[in-house]
Amino acid sequence: MKLTVVGIGPGNEENMTLRAVKALEEAQVIVGYQVYVDLVKDRYPGKEFLTTGMTREAQRCRMALEEAKKGKAVAMVCSGDSGVYGMAALCYELRGDSLEPEIEVVPGLTAACSGGAVLGAPLTHDFAVISLSDRLTPWEKIEARLRHAAQADFAIAIYNPKSHGRPHHLAKACDILLEILPETRLCGVVRNIGREGEQAELMSLRQLRDYDADMFCTVFIGNEMTRSIAGKLVTPRGYRDE
Amino acid sequence: MKLTVVGIGPGNEENMTLRAVKALEEAQVIVGYQVYVDLVKDRYPGKEFLTTGMTREAQRCRMALEEAKKGKAVAMVCSGDSGVYGMAALCYELRGDSLEPEIEVVPGLTAACSGGAVLGAPLTHDFAVISLSDRLTPWEKIEARLRHAAQADFAIAIYNPKSHGRPHHLAKACDILLEILPETRLCGVVRNIGREGEQAELMSLRQLRDYDADMFCTVFIGNEMTRSIAGKLVTPRGYRDE
Repeated sequence: MKLTVVGIGPGNEENMTLRAVKALEEAQVIVGYQVYVDLVKDRYPGKEFLTTGMTREAQRCRMALEEAKKGKAVAMVCSGDSGVYGMAALCYELRGDSLEPEIEVVPGLTAACSGGAVLGAPLTHDFAVISLSDRLTPWEKIEARLRHAAQADFAIAIYNPKSHGRPHHLAKACDILLEILPETRLCGVVRNIGREGEQAELMSLRQLRDYDADMFCTVFIGNEMTRSIAGKLVTPRGYRDE
Repeated sequence: MKLTVVGIGPGNEENMTLRAVKALEEAQVIVGYQVYVDLVKDRYPGKEFLTTGMTREAQRCRMALEEAKKGKAVAMVCSGDSGVYGMAALCYELRGDSLEPEIEVVPGLTAACSGGAVLGAPLTHDFAVISLSDRLTPWEKIEARLRHAAQADFAIAIYNPKSHGRPHHLAKACDILLEILPETRLCGVVRNIGREGEQAELMSLRQLRDYDADMFCTVFIGNEMTRSIAGKLVTPRGYRDE
């Protein structure tokens, strides 16, 4: 029947779109990474749930496509957006030139937006989104992107600042940024967006270098205009009275 | 009472989050740019609506803050996200060091995500978001950001590709990108996301240069891996069977 690739946002129901909720309600089978399926499982009793482990993305997408080909309504859940670091592209890749099963992509709140809202408004102006995971991307390429983003005065949202086997990536990334940006550049970290233990902290780029981030953190680097206003991380766009 | 800055996404109700719907339902006053208020007005009868014209952002935010200070529940609507090119930052700026009225930022689907989903999955990997509006940003800075984004092999989402008084910005931006990227680089344009007349087109960067975009378009430039799969714009992240 149809595979719907659903961005569920940061994890709590209120940050899901009506369209995402509807897609899960209408699905017979919900497929996903174990951790994300656990986020929605209790809200959708009576569904069939299929999960795979952390690095089994291709297996997961193939499984979802197969179930849909059998005639089932299948929803594949992705945390955040279904596109941004999500599974939509891989589903299209694995389906290839065929148009069967139908694929629908339902967007969701990515951490740049949901985490930005917790911190204040750090991404009001042009920005870049960079993952520090070098599992699928050479570290040299990540370094080059950090450099260009800093040189271009983009605000930056950093995903995957740390994970198993990559304990020092955030510090390494900050060292690169510190070659270009001042130590005082204002940054923010948000943890457990929209979940229990949600937490936001503002700090300088120098402090961020030694911050103990974990895999539930999203990191924001301000641009040259970013400042702290009443405890919030705010990047002005430059609106004036006209 | 409280000012809630609400990202309403691309415009149709199904792309709003549950939290955004709730914020509008609970508001006594809904404030916004006329065009965005018109998108939600019919769905929330019995509210007080306050609107201002296109470049009156500061006036609009002041009005919203004043209404909240009077003890009303106020929702300020922003198209897309409340942060990304939205009004959240300006509300914090205008409130200044005070903590009154309370401000809550409710994130919404930005066009990078909602438009990406219409085209396929162009932003699976690191990406940059750049507005071509030079009303508040010097054109030289926009040019520099385009150059750095291309050099860093970011996929790029371009907002405000054209507007009154800026008919040639997209062509100018493409000329800059064409200094670095090949003419064949795959791009996409999406128009009227989530609204009547929604439309997606794939084309080369060379074709994009002469494309007649309007202010309802969001433009996507692929990275070096982006390709067309069964009519969709897809940027692989590089997942393989493991």
